[in-house]
Amino acid sequence: MSTFVVVGGDAAGMSAASKAKRDDPNLDVVVFEKGEWVSYGACGLPYYIKGEIQSLESLVSVTPEEFREERDIDLRTGHEVVEVDPEKQTVTARGPDGEIVQPYDSLLLATGAAAVTPPIDGLDREGVFTLGSMSDGADLREYVSRARLEDELMQPDRGPACQFLETCRGPVGVVGGGYIGVEMAEALAANDFEVHLFQRGDRILKSFSEATSQSVLDHLGEQDIAVHLGASVKELAGGDRVEAVVTTDERVPVDMVLVGTGVDPRTDLAEDAGVELGETGAIATDAYRETNVPDVYAAGDCAEATHVVTGEPAYVPLALTANRHGRAIGKTVAGLPTEGGGVAGTAAIKAFEVEAARTGVLNHAEAREAGFEPLTETITAKSRAGYYPEGGTVQVTLTIDEPSGRILGGSLVSEYGEGAVHRSHALVGAVTEGVAVDELSNYDLAYAPPFNTTWDPVLTAAKVVDGQR
Amino acid sequence: MSTFVVVGGDAAGMSAASKAKRDDPNLDVVVFEKGEWVSYGACGLPYYIKGEIQSLESLVSVTPEEFREERDIDLRTGHEVVEVDPEKQTVTARGPDGEIVQPYDSLLLATGAAAVTPPIDGLDREGVFTLGSMSDGADLREYVSRARLEDELMQPDRGPACQFLETCRGPVGVVGGGYIGVEMAEALAANDFEVHLFQRGDRILKSFSEATSQSVLDHLGEQDIAVHLGASVKELAGGDRVEAVVTTDERVPVDMVLVGTGVDPRTDLAEDAGVELGETGAIATDAYRETNVPDVYAAGDCAEATHVVTGEPAYVPLALTANRHGRAIGKTVAGLPTEGGGVAGTAAIKAFEVEAARTGVLNHAEAREAGFEPLTETITAKSRAGYYPEGGTVQVTLTIDEPSGRILGGSLVSEYGEGAVHRSHALVGAVTEGVAVDELSNYDLAYAPPFNTTWDPVLTAAKVVDGQR
Repeated sequence: MSTFVVVGGDAAGMSAASKAKRDDPNLDVVVFEKGEWVSYGACGLPYYIKGEIQSLESLVSVTPEEFREERDIDLRTGHEVVEVDPEKQTVTARGPDGEIVQPYDSLLLATGAAAVTPPIDGLDREGVFTLGSMSDGADLREYVSRARLEDELMQPDRGPACQFLETCRGPVGVVGGGYIGVEMAEALAANDFEVHLFQRGDRILKSFSEATSQSVLDHLGEQDIAVHLGASVKELAGGDRVEAVVTTDERVPVDMVLVGTGVDPRTDLAEDAGVELGETGAIATDAYRETNVPDVYAAGDCAEATHVVTGEPAYVPLALTANRHGRAIGKTVAGLPTEGGGVAGTAAIKAFEVEAARTGVLNHAEAREAGFEPLTETITAKSRAGYYPEGGTVQVTLTIDEPSGRILGGSLVSEYGEGAVHRSHALVGAVTEGVAVDELSNYDLAYAPPFNTTWDPVLTAAKVVDGQR
Repeated sequence: MSTFVVVGGDAAGMSAASKAKRDDPNLDVVVFEKGEWVSYGACGLPYYIKGEIQSLESLVSVTPEEFREERDIDLRTGHEVVEVDPEKQTVTARGPDGEIVQPYDSLLLATGAAAVTPPIDGLDREGVFTLGSMSDGADLREYVSRARLEDELMQPDRGPACQFLETCRGPVGVVGGGYIGVEMAEALAANDFEVHLFQRGDRILKSFSEATSQSVLDHLGEQDIAVHLGASVKELAGGDRVEAVVTTDERVPVDMVLVGTGVDPRTDLAEDAGVELGETGAIATDAYRETNVPDVYAAGDCAEATHVVTGEPAYVPLALTANRHGRAIGKTVAGLPTEGGGVAGTAAIKAFEVEAARTGVLNHAEAREAGFEPLTETITAKSRAGYYPEGGTVQVTLTIDEPSGRILGGSLVSEYGEGAVHRSHALVGAVTEGVAVDELSNYDLAYAPPFNTTWDPVLTAAKVVDGQR
């Protein structure tokens, strides 16, 4: 009987464990998870903090009990793996009852990622949060709930300075204008906080097209989010508690700060075991997600994947890739070698009342490095037939390789519900299959007046950029 | 100076005329249209009749004046072309001032389609409508408006038999369960008519998957549409006015009937000129939409196109293909030979509070005829993250070629707004590019909790059908 050991009980780890056990019930599957939560939807945390989701438990797709009892997986929560010995094929885990040494035939490292610690003073002050784990989510929700409760309690005793204000609470700061920053700006604003968002660069959502970034930025302005662009945050100043965000240019008083400046892959355990990292800093693997160490796999937010456009390793730590690669490893370990596919760098976001998605390569420097000659065009088109009573606009950016016409990347934004995100499905296929823009413009996409104009905005964008070649 | 003559002023004709003139301003472009309306969105007629669109004019995307004055196109409405002489390269048109003979260098036949006349007695009775033209739309709107007005006027004088009824109006019949039939059922029900829909076969929307058809059928039932399946309509009985729909099984009293049993290509003019039809009965063309007669093109609802899955000619008279092929012909005629691409048989529909789309080959007999070994699976999945406060379900049917895994077709249905139609974009790309289902299941589709589960329903369907091989 063979043993498959998994380190890390979230998306990649539990997908692999479940699939391996399902496809080969004779396999012993052991999962070590250092925390108490497994298989949770961290992507849902902003909506929990916002108050749209009532319990942390509802973010869990499968409970530890279900893994243990229904899926027959030896899931050991509260166990941190401290060493991997590839010679002896064992892992050492530290749990409530001390250390155990567990032999493996196959091993998956699914150790995830940790919030980046940016070079900012005062990160350890009270009132400074990150959002990486379920307990981070619980802390933030508690902060928001307490503030709301205080609002209610303070109401009758409001001082004269407060009486014309909606709330006596001070403003809050969000450092970082990526997915987490923007989603948390929405979650906090929905709870009546005055939100200041600090972004180091000259635009938010920098993996999206410039046009998409600008559209979302404009919308954040409409929603009264104070976005500070080009803001280099030096310090989160205060005493025990944070009192202000200090940049090179200004000092903005705040009661709380969320720091969301990206994640780094957790690779210590792998490195100690002689597992090689790639140039992105994450664990390098082959197409089957196997590392340089035989029978040791890596997947999820700790590992690289191959970009479908550049063919080069990329680090895109997102949920679907973790699930997909975990599942592929599960099949491989159960006896059917399976490639998990590449990444297109696809991402989607809802920001207040707009939605946006991006896929492929949009950045011209990246495109040139991969040997392309990039050309980018952006169009704005109606989201439904012009005469249809509902509807808005969809803005589509396409980046192509000018000589070949190959679609390298796309970015879309629309009002929420007007389909930017689902329409991006067409572009994911195009970048994955290496479709040229004139081919795409001939696609027989679905049309009916409640859903688009005769030429879907994606087709209009293809026609326009094709015309610029 | 060269002359491009177009017969028919709707989607294909006006797209070709506009593109040709734009790309080669020296070209003389003459369009003959027998009616008064050009470039109108017939797809919008059901929403006009429903009352969601207030004027027929709003369905017109470009007015005759704009074509004439801004686009410099010699548009002659009220002119019916009665003969094409390919030897002399002339067309003869009959207009208000008699016949004119117009020479051409290139000719486009964009004569469209006409409502099928089914073998039913009584089609000429008053109160029997079809929906093919703008004037059909006007007639139906008038009928609906008059009924609503009568409701209001009758209110105080209602007889005792009427006083507990919502309306004194009788029920209405819709013959045909395709797009027009279903959309008109919605339009009529929204105006408080009791609607009986008669479908000859055993399911509505028969080009969609059986599962999609059933889902929409169930929904029509929830909306109190009386759907009569397997109903072979023999007669629309009555005196001057229609009084009942008579099938082989029953007699259903009605005040009005809409007949929507499909369309046939208008090919008389082409046939008379020696232009060959294909096996579908529509005009045959090459990849540039040129017919067997040199310099004579055909596009839109009168012409065939090549199916991207079977590689065989297909007759799919829909708006996007007409626009796309018209535009390609315009480019060709202006000097840049351009293929307009094939058709995937993609279609979308809104039916009350559900939306559905289909693409490719779903029918097993058709698939076998094209040399495939079809396998079909249907899954139902959540449309958004399970914990997200909004959302519904998406049902996805995939038909694949079992040996190769190639995706042949797909059909999707969801609640309106839950993205079945825009998600179908992914499947259009897959059937067009000949993608295998295991490849599709590895697509890096956009994910965020407000838009889907981590595995979009399209990916889940791909995984499931791949697992059945």
